[in-house]
Amino acid sequence: MNVLIVHAHPEPQSFTAALRDQAIATLQAQGHEVQVSDLYAMNWNPVATAADFTARENPDYLVYALEQRLGVKSQSIAADIQQELDKLLWADLLILNFPIFWFSAPAMLKGWIDRVLVSGVCYGGKRFYDQGGLAGKKALVTVTLGGREHMFGERAIHGPLEDMLRPILRGTLAYVGFDVLPPFVAWHVPYISAEARGEFLCSYQQRLEGLADDQPLVFPKLEQFDEALYPL
Amino acid sequence: MNVLIVHAHPEPQSFTAALRDQAIATLQAQGHEVQVSDLYAMNWNPVATAADFTARENPDYLVYALEQRLGVKSQSIAADIQQELDKLLWADLLILNFPIFWFSAPAMLKGWIDRVLVSGVCYGGKRFYDQGGLAGKKALVTVTLGGREHMFGERAIHGPLEDMLRPILRGTLAYVGFDVLPPFVAWHVPYISAEARGEFLCSYQQRLEGLADDQPLVFPKLEQFDEALYPL
Repeated sequence: MNVLIVHAHPEPQSFTAALRDQAIATLQAQGHEVQVSDLYAMNWNPVATAADFTARENPDYLVYALEQRLGVKSQSIAADIQQELDKLLWADLLILNFPIFWFSAPAMLKGWIDRVLVSGVCYGGKRFYDQGGLAGKKALVTVTLGGREHMFGERAIHGPLEDMLRPILRGTLAYVGFDVLPPFVAWHVPYISAEARGEFLCSYQQRLEGLADDQPLVFPKLEQFDEALYPL
Repeated sequence: MNVLIVHAHPEPQSFTAALRDQAIATLQAQGHEVQVSDLYAMNWNPVATAADFTARENPDYLVYALEQRLGVKSQSIAADIQQELDKLLWADLLILNFPIFWFSAPAMLKGWIDRVLVSGVCYGGKRFYDQGGLAGKKALVTVTLGGREHMFGERAIHGPLEDMLRPILRGTLAYVGFDVLPPFVAWHVPYISAEARGEFLCSYQQRLEGLADDQPLVFPKLEQFDEALYPL
């Protein structure tokens, strides 16, 4: 497999970075090709603006998704976006590797999503969910957080973590067609021992080694809806 | 009331900007004080980094929330963050005004949340949800999106919009103590007529004029959980 790891953490020595390195080592040992986009190290620009297009369909009024659709055809998308898009299209497996900030991705990573998942390639018209432009690829979300595991779940104070991650798991990754694997979660990371961190790294290694057998999460399929997207 | 509108849209002439201006006019006509943080116009930096602290508790290893907690005490938080935090503390009502990108906020606004909702002031320890640092204030999320209303809801293709907005409504705004009002949603915006847009502006005006009577959404209260945050 070709694997793209998109990593976003403001501390280079973080445990999230250790998870990234564990993934690189484990996947390479299995013979996979791995590329890493380390967004902080790259000084990635997360802000979607008109400057993302060297030529514009409508220079007077920016509809971002429309300019993406046209820009990707005419190769007038900013070079930093095109490079990431090329990596994304190359990958069979995408790993988003990040610390949870406000029950979602850091702005740095959100801006990778905003800018790189371009309309016309990753989705567009009726090409979403199982019909999305990236169908056939797999995605894994690997997160660290401060909370404890018992704070998440049906009766727990924050509800299920998958519900908090819904805009990413369903609204982004499943939307563009990925088979989305259950997230890998390292709990309570700022407060745990080096030994407990080691156990997370070990179970992450095992998880990655068995990834081929993982069952993806279940999301809507377009065939369950009519032409106007009303449920059948 | 003091009202802070945080606005994030890459197109200055957008309909989202028209909603911002409608809010300013309506709220001022009612005698409220209004401040606006127009993040694109301000060239806001959305990326949380070590440079957000002029002095560091631990210069060798960044734990962002910990440095926030100490930085806000010692006034060593970056000036752009402190200015936004001052506006936030001044406000009785916060309006987040944005176009939905990937079923959530644009990175520009996510980075305002990441950097401005500082630990030690907005939350910390057992100070979250109804005990959050911003308890007593109200928050309203005003969004525009491309999707149609029938694509959202219990049996709809994307599920309820409130579920997609959960990390913002519950995981962010309710978490820091806001009374979170039901979102105001303008559907299908890129594709509708000027007349239909005018109707959204009109219903937004009416909504804002009646805001005092709006019932907030219901979220967990800490009294429903024990000391270790297990459900009682």
